[in-house]
Amino acid sequence: MEAGMFKFDPRLYLVTQRYDYSREEFLARVAAAICGGVTAVQLREKEAGGREFYELALALAKLCREQKVSFWINDRVDIALAAQADGVHVGQEDLPATVLRRIIPKQMLLGVSASTVDEAKAAEQAGADCVGCGAVFATDTKSVKLLSSQGLQAIRAAVQIPMLAIGGIKVANAARPIADGADGVAVVSAIMLASDTYAAAKSLRQVVDAALSERRSTK
Amino acid sequence: MEAGMFKFDPRLYLVTQRYDYSREEFLARVAAAICGGVTAVQLREKEAGGREFYELALALAKLCREQKVSFWINDRVDIALAAQADGVHVGQEDLPATVLRRIIPKQMLLGVSASTVDEAKAAEQAGADCVGCGAVFATDTKSVKLLSSQGLQAIRAAVQIPMLAIGGIKVANAARPIADGADGVAVVSAIMLASDTYAAAKSLRQVVDAALSERRSTK
Repeated sequence: MEAGMFKFDPRLYLVTQRYDYSREEFLARVAAAICGGVTAVQLREKEAGGREFYELALALAKLCREQKVSFWINDRVDIALAAQADGVHVGQEDLPATVLRRIIPKQMLLGVSASTVDEAKAAEQAGADCVGCGAVFATDTKSVKLLSSQGLQAIRAAVQIPMLAIGGIKVANAARPIADGADGVAVVSAIMLASDTYAAAKSLRQVVDAALSERRSTK
Repeated sequence: MEAGMFKFDPRLYLVTQRYDYSREEFLARVAAAICGGVTAVQLREKEAGGREFYELALALAKLCREQKVSFWINDRVDIALAAQADGVHVGQEDLPATVLRRIIPKQMLLGVSASTVDEAKAAEQAGADCVGCGAVFATDTKSVKLLSSQGLQAIRAAVQIPMLAIGGIKVANAARPIADGADGVAVVSAIMLASDTYAAAKSLRQVVDAALSERRSTK
């Protein structure tokens, strides 16, 4: 199956982190999480050299295509192009979205991290396909300023593209950002550090799906 | 001037290193080196985030275009694409050359580091436009295995594409790799750490040009 041939489903977006897992354990944990209900996977590698990153990307791209979940690369557009990922996700410190839209294929999805209304609007105007907004809760993965419920709602009101909430999201709190208007949640440690990534993904997905139904029914 | 509109001249190839220079001092040092005789510049940034790397690349690309020297990016194909660099250079640990040739524009030059005949032949077959071979002398920049005169000559005999020698090259020793068949020398610290980068480039260029003349006259 070619990249971009299925719709991007933002409900449960797994952002990977290698931690100390071997390559095999890492891939197995991601595969189990996909079976558990992850709807999109973003490979984020901060340490790996280009070739190692690329080879891991090829392995994950294959898995994601087989499982029909969208596959994203964090930051490295070259790896995204080489591995024919469905999307590339960049932060405010990475290449600007306007420049990216010019150098990536038309069908490649573009995600941008945004923690303010201005950043989210700029991303949408630059042609982003989704924004990742946070941190909605305190997190061990990154130390960043928190984005309140009001802040998330304000971004929701300002942009039309899918909005993911990120930062410290777990089963116990995942319903709140969905109630605030997020189309899905992005998680790192809630899945990658879980003892059972299949079960962790399944529980998270149930909370997200329930919160989405609840929001729709109360509209 | 568009990228790739002038011929790649490999004689004195500057690979940058930021060290502790401010952005302004860094750019000034590179500009002075170009005026002194550098024929190609490769921006190598190991620490910078994508946006900082990109902005530095734009500044250097402009300078190189104005001065008609080719401008290369180390490793990050996305930055090379975004800044419309003339070339991208990768090591054996970066994305494979065969994959790169598929994702970069046809006119973009591709350089590959090679320290053996096999690596150099593979690079040439994959469509590389030049190989960077070394380390021909001991270096403080990278600790790597040395490539002997015989090793460099063997690579020269095995590939047709331009061959740059790299590693510990300075005025006092630059003639040897040229005599061994290199088309030019790539330097980092011999220019970037020089008190006067203009003078350092000028001296190196004189040695290289003299060694190239000498080699041609004794053929």
